[in-house]
Amino acid sequence: SLAGPRRRLLRPRPRRTALGAPSSCVLAIDADASATPRHQFKDTPLVARTGRRAGDGDTRRKILDAARSSFANHGYQGATIRVIAAEAQVDPALIHHYFGPKEDLFAASIEFPLSPANAVETIMADGIENAGRNLVRLFLSVWEIQPTRDALMAIVRAGVTTDQGAETLRQFFGEVLLSHVAPHLEGEDAELRVALVASHLIGMALLRYVVGFEQLAKASPDELVDLITPRIQDYLTG
Amino acid sequence: SLAGPRRRLLRPRPRRTALGAPSSCVLAIDADASATPRHQFKDTPLVARTGRRAGDGDTRRKILDAARSSFANHGYQGATIRVIAAEAQVDPALIHHYFGPKEDLFAASIEFPLSPANAVETIMADGIENAGRNLVRLFLSVWEIQPTRDALMAIVRAGVTTDQGAETLRQFFGEVLLSHVAPHLEGEDAELRVALVASHLIGMALLRYVVGFEQLAKASPDELVDLITPRIQDYLTG
Repeated sequence: SLAGPRRRLLRPRPRRTALGAPSSCVLAIDADASATPRHQFKDTPLVARTGRRAGDGDTRRKILDAARSSFANHGYQGATIRVIAAEAQVDPALIHHYFGPKEDLFAASIEFPLSPANAVETIMADGIENAGRNLVRLFLSVWEIQPTRDALMAIVRAGVTTDQGAETLRQFFGEVLLSHVAPHLEGEDAELRVALVASHLIGMALLRYVVGFEQLAKASPDELVDLITPRIQDYLTG
Repeated sequence: SLAGPRRRLLRPRPRRTALGAPSSCVLAIDADASATPRHQFKDTPLVARTGRRAGDGDTRRKILDAARSSFANHGYQGATIRVIAAEAQVDPALIHHYFGPKEDLFAASIEFPLSPANAVETIMADGIENAGRNLVRLFLSVWEIQPTRDALMAIVRAGVTTDQGAETLRQFFGEVLLSHVAPHLEGEDAELRVALVASHLIGMALLRYVVGFEQLAKASPDELVDLITPRIQDYLTG
């Protein structure tokens, strides 16, 4: 089908193991996924892996290369689909066919294995009162996959060291948090509380994966989930 | 007195305004402090400013320059006082005279306006049950002072982009958190909980000051203190 390649990349698939009905974790791992997480969660998590179809590779790659350089050079808002299509020398409609909306293309360009909309769906699957745990688990899952981690580190480094990198991060995460996450929260200061949640998780990733701060680096994902969840949930519940 | 210059730099002074007895905030600001915080807290905070004595400047500067380059080149542990003294061409005893122990010299070299020991004393002044608010306020105070913020940003950037910068950060904060902060905490996982507190505050500073993420950048320090404190206190109380 037309939407095939995009779905394969960005949509979580139903779990197909014999472990019973999908739990709070609605994401599955391909049995043939090449990436090995550094740690494993006690109960299976994680994120859908990229599936590629023979023949699609070149076009996808061309679009992704153009997207990466456009986001890097023009920021998230400046890198319109039209700009990216021109750089990749493809029709803008083809970008939408392969990747969906711009936020999903950006997610793919940083090798983030989920679209923002699907990530939020996963986090909210068990209601806001369980969103903290789902969020922390999903966040850690994504960072535990080596290629994704490398890409995210590059993003963090660019965001911290260059104005354009900071601008891109700011615009992308601003849009995602404000349009996808904040609307689910009740109470005052929803936007600020969501930003504080993001700051905690990003700071944790920074110290654990980038700086390699010992106490955080040696903890298991499950320990981290148990410790961080109550505080994140507290922000979400308000 | 011998300890004069060091005291002037690193020790908080008793408050000398007419506002009554020292409150939870044991730090005072020099009336002639050249740095203006971007925001002001409702009730007076902040940190002691550097006082310089005529004639001390050259030696202090020479030691600080040597310290900065030694920490950058050899990491926190590799840059011994002996290495730094050799580079500055001064007697090691003089370094101790001006700056006290190595952690205080490092603090001064990154323009951190407090020694780690004094920072912890300030945070714990009202007992562990109030340490959350004192910690968040102190952390924000320090970042709100422009020259300190610039220095801290440089440290964060180096920590994120270079192995040696990461190593220095790791060693210094590891020592400070483990020797000064964790011992005050009760309950399990004290070291990990302290590291998670640090991760939240560093992530917040990253998004507010370095990346300039709008929701965090536009919040006032007081709003941030009110929102962040309960979650930090929760980690500290265990």
